[in-house]
Parts: sequence; structure tokens; C-alpha cells
Amino acid sequence: MSKFWSRTAREAEPYVPGEQPSDVNVIKLNTNENPFPPSPLALEAMEQSINADLKKYPSPTADRLKAVIAEREGVDVNKVFVGNGSDEVLAFAFQAFFDPNEAIKMPEITYSFYPVYANLYDIPFQQIPLQNDLSIDVEGLKRSVGGVIFPNPNAPTGLALSRVEVESIVAHNPNQVVIVDEAYVEFGAESAISLTKQYPNLLVTKTLSKSHALAGLRVGYAIGDVALIEGLERIKNSFNSYTINRVSLAGAEAALADEPYYDETLQAIVKTREWVTHDLEQLGFWVAESKANFLFVKPNGIGAETLYQQLKARGVYIRYFNKPGLEGYVRISIGTDDEMKRLIDIIQALIS
Amino acid sequence: MSKFWSRTAREAEPYVPGEQPSDVNVIKLNTNENPFPPSPLALEAMEQSINADLKKYPSPTADRLKAVIAEREGVDVNKVFVGNGSDEVLAFAFQAFFDPNEAIKMPEITYSFYPVYANLYDIPFQQIPLQNDLSIDVEGLKRSVGGVIFPNPNAPTGLALSRVEVESIVAHNPNQVVIVDEAYVEFGAESAISLTKQYPNLLVTKTLSKSHALAGLRVGYAIGDVALIEGLERIKNSFNSYTINRVSLAGAEAALADEPYYDETLQAIVKTREWVTHDLEQLGFWVAESKANFLFVKPNGIGAETLYQQLKARGVYIRYFNKPGLEGYVRISIGTDDEMKRLIDIIQALIS
Repeated sequence: MSKFWSRTAREAEPYVPGEQPSDVNVIKLNTNENPFPPSPLALEAMEQSINADLKKYPSPTADRLKAVIAEREGVDVNKVFVGNGSDEVLAFAFQAFFDPNEAIKMPEITYSFYPVYANLYDIPFQQIPLQNDLSIDVEGLKRSVGGVIFPNPNAPTGLALSRVEVESIVAHNPNQVVIVDEAYVEFGAESAISLTKQYPNLLVTKTLSKSHALAGLRVGYAIGDVALIEGLERIKNSFNSYTINRVSLAGAEAALADEPYYDETLQAIVKTREWVTHDLEQLGFWVAESKANFLFVKPNGIGAETLYQQLKARGVYIRYFNKPGLEGYVRISIGTDDEMKRLIDIIQALIS
Repeated sequence: MSKFWSRTAREAEPYVPGEQPSDVNVIKLNTNENPFPPSPLALEAMEQSINADLKKYPSPTADRLKAVIAEREGVDVNKVFVGNGSDEVLAFAFQAFFDPNEAIKMPEITYSFYPVYANLYDIPFQQIPLQNDLSIDVEGLKRSVGGVIFPNPNAPTGLALSRVEVESIVAHNPNQVVIVDEAYVEFGAESAISLTKQYPNLLVTKTLSKSHALAGLRVGYAIGDVALIEGLERIKNSFNSYTINRVSLAGAEAALADEPYYDETLQAIVKTREWVTHDLEQLGFWVAESKANFLFVKPNGIGAETLYQQLKARGVYIRYFNKPGLEGYVRISIGTDDEMKRLIDIIQALIS
């Protein structure tokens, strides 16, 4: 605490990201990264962008990237906003659409950055408990005072709502903005993007970090009604004129255009997720029905924290959340088949 | 205006950056970019970073980049903060150190993003008029209520304060944070970084956009007392865990390490600035004594706005600010010798 800090700095409760070990031999199943490399076409486009033009600012409006996204998502280009990772997009959205003194709603167990944003911008929030089966309480998210945010699929459970359920939350908050964070949607859940045509209060955010294997590049986006996009642009242009650099723009444009590559890798990840779920269940573990690239798991025969520590000691990083309601669980990202076989082998040895 | 916008979004007054024409034949002297390409070693390091590791998040703490900066600036590594361009660093600093209800001070004519940040974070501000010679009023920036921000050299005038003058502002605001924005300092002004050892209230920000020809990469940093850096980290970690992507980290590290290349190109720019100043004065224009990579110019025999428009029609972009107090002036970035010869030729033809 310093006398030079603002009230905002004093009251901030920063987010703590998963560990990024420098040892390259580690099997990293702790931050939901994609086990496959980015599209070769994306790598090539980035290489091409490494030239003398880097002396010049990037496009402040990122029109070309927005056009690629609009094409891919089947929306008009003026319904697209882009940012430096979906974390930045979400931060801008909190600032653009939520107000102090008007409590927003979010699930009690969810992406733990949401309460951090709320604290940063002094927005009160109500955390709605999950249902007994760990799914999001759809009724509980209706009729908010200040707005709603939730991920679909939810993190860290991986459980998804149907589009009809998402729509009922949006329809029952007609005067509030509802943000649906679809960071993991490409791994098997239903996107709500088509609903943005009917609902001017719906903002859907996505990221290239997971589905497009570009966590290292930092590109995210949002889709919503023109007025919502304009609100985001107002905040962004009051914060940083050029949030996405030239190389990231080039890489993101090429990645989003390479659908065949990503279709194939997404399918491979889903396939791996299915057999790992089966194997963990065979070991007596409880596994939530994941529509994401990670599994939310309740170990059996070994404590969650012990499992995390024992795996770490053997060079396999998974995520353990030392938080009320989450102590009994671990979250395991889906790696390659080889990585997951190694994981299962170690777990088998640990519990036998 | 939308009913879904927060008060912050409604009241924001976004910054308008200089034009980024897509025509590659344009001579771009409007956004203070460096006319030289980035260091070949920086380009090489970026190329090397285009690989499968982009699937993984970048380092959230950017320790390697911070170490390079600490080495270069002669400070401890825990006195360094890095961000996605110095615009982002400045935005975080406003949020971390300035408070609503405590007016900060800034020069009346200065980088026009400062009032935008102040509006975004609801911070009142007092604009201190420049002196008659357009220099910053040092006395006027003393004894602030909430803090101080100014660039050195100032933009768009290019005029610099001495380190002694900067120190007197810092010393006369002992309980407030003073931010010195040294975006252009490498082109000939005295840096205040050495003063951060004595003054716990001094934060100095810098960018790789101008001096290091990397505007397209978006990397900036701040140097200050450990407590100030910690305040910035609290805001950053409440906003976006990974603000700088892998490629930008690699490029920035290599660029800052290649001092010989940048010493040479900085000297070339200063040399060009000197002869262009002389030539413009020969044409009867008034030119402020610039310590930056741009000239603040009062044309003679042609209006400022006309000059801007006529040059634009001939493929040369300079900056004209349609703002009270600035109507009589244009700002011209220093390009290559060939570009500046072309500029002088066109101006000569226009006024004869």
C-alpha cells in the first residue's frame, strides 16, 4: 500500500493467471492452451508482416481483421469489435455497459476475472450459485438490475447452456446488457451469435487463444448490435488508439481464414476429450460433461490438491483453485493424445 | 447515444489519431513515426518467435523484457513496468495514481490524449497555459492537488525542459505523482530517469514507437519507484494478464539491445531535423526549437490548414490540429532526407 495509489489501485484485487513454467519439458495442462500449433498459413502471414513497415502504426480501426471476422461469423462488419485478447474486450465491455450502483449478475463459480473487472470499475455484483449439477442457474440470471455476464461453456466446469437457455436470459434482461463469453464455444457448444440480430442487448465475446492456438498473439473480439460496438469503440479510443499490433493483425486474419485446419484440430481435441473423460471415469473420478477444451474433475482415492502437487512434481501442470466450492476439484486442459496418455498413466500409478 | 451505454461510455471523448492512409506512395509525416526501419536484429528476433510456441500464452510478467530495460536505463528490474504501447502505460498510470475530486495539472497545449484519459477515469484537470515562447510553464505545474502530467519534450511543440526544470516540478509536488512522458526524449532532450532514485513520486514513461522505429509493435514502459510500479501492476493485473504478445516481447528485447543501430539512426534524424529547420526558416516560416522527431511550424505566406490540405493533395501527410490555440500551426514529422527534400520543394512551389 502506498500513499501515491489511487482508491482504484488500493481496492483492486488482481487476477492470478495459471503458471507459465519456463521448463520446456513440462506437460502444460493448466491454462487451456491448444495442444496443436497455429495454422501454417497464420505463421506464414506473420512472417510476412515482419518487415520495415513495423515502423508505422497499425491500423487503428483494424478494418481488414473485422471484415474477416464478419465474414466468418455471418454478421455485418459494423457489428464487430476487436481487442488485445478477449480479456481486454471484456474489460472494455464492463466499462462501457455496467455502472456503479447497479449490481450485475454472474455465476458464483465462473471465470474468476469477472469479479476483478467489477472491482476495478467499482461495479457491484451478485454471484448466483450454480445448480446442484454444477450447471448455471438460468432463472437466477434473469431480471438483473445492471447487466449479466457468464461464459458459455462455463469455466472451470466446461458445462454448456443451450442456445434456447441463453436466449431466455437475454430476453429476460431487455434493458440490460448481457455478455456471453464464448471463449470455449468452438469445442462443441452452441454459439449465441445468431441471436445478436434480434437482441440489441446481447454482446458475444470470443478469442483466438484457445480454438485458434494463438494464446501467444493476444487477439479477441466481440459481436453485437451496432450501438454496443460503438460503445466499446468509445472506450477503446479513450484508452489506446492501437490495441492490436501489425503482426497480430496479420496472424489473426490468416488464422480465421484457414477453416479446414482448425476444423481438423478442433475435432481431434474433442476426440481426445472423449477418451480421457472415459478413462478418468474408469479410474473412479467424477468428470463434468465438458463442451470445452478442458475437464473439470473430482478425483477419487486422492485429494485434489495432492493430485495437483504430485502431477507437478512429475512435470505435469494442471490447475487447482484454492477457493471455496472448488477445493475438491481440478481442471485439466486437453493436450495431445500422448500428453494425456502420460497423464492417465501417472494418475493410475498415484492412486494404485 | 444508446440506453445501454454506461455513464463512462456516454461521457467519453475519444482521441482521434493521425490518419493512416493505405496508399503506400504517401509520404507520411503526420504521426511521428521513425523514417528508418527497425533494427535488423529486432526483425530477426521477431521472425524467430513465429513458431509453434504461439499456442502458449506469453509471460504475464515479461521478466526478460524488463531485465533488458533495467540494464539499458540503469535501474533495478523492479522499477520497470511494461505495456501495450505507452498509451496503455499512461492509461494505467491515470487509473493507478489519480483520483476523482483531486484535480491534476497538465499543460494547456500538449499530447491531446491526456484530457481523454482524465475524462475516461473521471479525473478533473487544470490546463496550465504555455508561456509566450510556447514553453511549458514550470511554475504553473507546481503545487498540484492531484498530480501532474506533461511530456518532455512537449508535443506538439517539440520544446524541452531541462532536467533541473523537471526536477523542480517533481520536488514541488512531493505528495502527488508526477508523470513525465518521455516519448520523444531520445531525440535530444534530457531524461529524468536518474531522478527516480531520489523522488518516489516520479514516474517516467517511454515508448519504442518513435526512437526504436516500432510503432507497429506496440511496446511502451515506465520507470519509477517500486511502489509506483506495484500500483501499475495492480491495475494491469485487474485488466489483462498478458498485455504484450510473444512477438512484441521478442522484438522489443532485441531492439533495446541493439544500441549501435539506434544511435546511428537517431543521429541521422537529428541531422535532418536541423537542415529542415534551417530551410523552413529560410522560407520565412517560424519553427519551434525541437528536441523531438517533429517540427512545430507556423507557416508564412500560406495558412496552416491550406498548407496541410495542399500537401495532402500532393501525397504528403502532415498534421493539422483544428483546435483553439493551434490553428496557426502544423506539425511535421522528420522523415528521410529525400522525403524532406520533396516536402521543402512542394512548400517552395506553393508559396512562390
